[in-house]
Amino acid sequence: MDPTLINFKVLYVLTQLCGLTMIVLVGTWIGQHFGGLGGTDNPKQEFNWHPLFMTIGFIYLYGNSILIYRGFRTTRKKTLKLTHAGIHMAAFVLTVIALKTVFDSHNLVDPPIPNMYSLHSWLGLSAVIIFCLQYVAGFMAFLVPGMRENYKIALMPLHIYFGLFGFVLAIASAVMGLTEKAIFAIPNYSTLPAAGVLANIIGVLYVVFGALVVYLATEPSYKRKAIPEDTALLSANGTE
Amino acid sequence: MDPTLINFKVLYVLTQLCGLTMIVLVGTWIGQHFGGLGGTDNPKQEFNWHPLFMTIGFIYLYGNSILIYRGFRTTRKKTLKLTHAGIHMAAFVLTVIALKTVFDSHNLVDPPIPNMYSLHSWLGLSAVIIFCLQYVAGFMAFLVPGMRENYKIALMPLHIYFGLFGFVLAIASAVMGLTEKAIFAIPNYSTLPAAGVLANIIGVLYVVFGALVVYLATEPSYKRKAIPEDTALLSANGTE
Repeated sequence: MDPTLINFKVLYVLTQLCGLTMIVLVGTWIGQHFGGLGGTDNPKQEFNWHPLFMTIGFIYLYGNSILIYRGFRTTRKKTLKLTHAGIHMAAFVLTVIALKTVFDSHNLVDPPIPNMYSLHSWLGLSAVIIFCLQYVAGFMAFLVPGMRENYKIALMPLHIYFGLFGFVLAIASAVMGLTEKAIFAIPNYSTLPAAGVLANIIGVLYVVFGALVVYLATEPSYKRKAIPEDTALLSANGTE
Repeated sequence: MDPTLINFKVLYVLTQLCGLTMIVLVGTWIGQHFGGLGGTDNPKQEFNWHPLFMTIGFIYLYGNSILIYRGFRTTRKKTLKLTHAGIHMAAFVLTVIALKTVFDSHNLVDPPIPNMYSLHSWLGLSAVIIFCLQYVAGFMAFLVPGMRENYKIALMPLHIYFGLFGFVLAIASAVMGLTEKAIFAIPNYSTLPAAGVLANIIGVLYVVFGALVVYLATEPSYKRKAIPEDTALLSANGTE
């Protein structure tokens, strides 16, 4: 096999292991140290959906959706585009739930905790807004038929740039969120109890996962090459 | 003039304005709200060197050093390489002072504040270590004569990747640092007093500055093209 492809596969598997470990550790963290998951009758437990669903949706699925073209290079382009849009939609749904639970957990306690004051909330919501704008723009430009080919070619570098920017901003927001939760809710964080060590390890995993995704998505030699099925589709319906 | 070059120049000027505003606002923030700068006899004031010098050195100079090849495209390569190493050295000196002042400010209070427990410290120090390893590797590979040309070509993509990774990690660490300082030292941060709004605006500027630097450094059409002086040097001394 092509050594470039072997390198890619090794790093791709590492990325998945890192991502899955990150999710398991967030689950462990909220389960062991913050009382696990709960509904609106227990705002502190309801909050715990926020880090869990953001990690699964806005980091793990977002990253994997970015990698879909390079990870499944023998699948035809049209299928990949639909899968990309589909995984992004799943990421969006989890992100919306994760936002709802954090607002609930602020509003349903007495006295209520103010919303949207922290830098974490400013940058995190910016990342979500960038993600949504990207989704709409990408859907109109690359999925709905009719966009002229030269516009698609002009838009693609911006789609890639803002896609990666939103993803990196999500990770920057996540490490800020960990910092907030550690300071607010881990007794004696500065003595590094188990919950604090775990928070820091989760933060390191976010960064390693993000670094791997960005590397795999930008290294030119890993770029997917067109396959015959892509062209067959082009001549069949005139769009794509 | 070439429209690509005009776009580059507009974004480059914006980047500088954003970077300089960021430095001025950090100065204003520590001056207006945290008592300004001080020496070892006042650990709280000594701490204030940390955000100021990290912002100037580890964000503004680091970013500008990355951009030097694209910003001064008519200067010959050798001069640019020395300038790149020089600005990075200045960034390193400011970063070391910024580290010293934060350790001092933890150690010289009674009771002392533990060092290196927070995710901010773990990721921030990782960014500094990556920066240092990059500096040594880059110096050996691209400045000391004798490295074989095929090694240089193989190392360059890694030098660029880890250079940008360290820079983005520095910014992620900076927004975490702002979060910590805001929570620890701004009374009623959650009601967004002036010091809190300023902290958030500084964080947004860090992100915008970082996004602009990464875009300017990676957009293929902005890449510097070789000039006759580069080749003249090559034939003159056989290295470069």
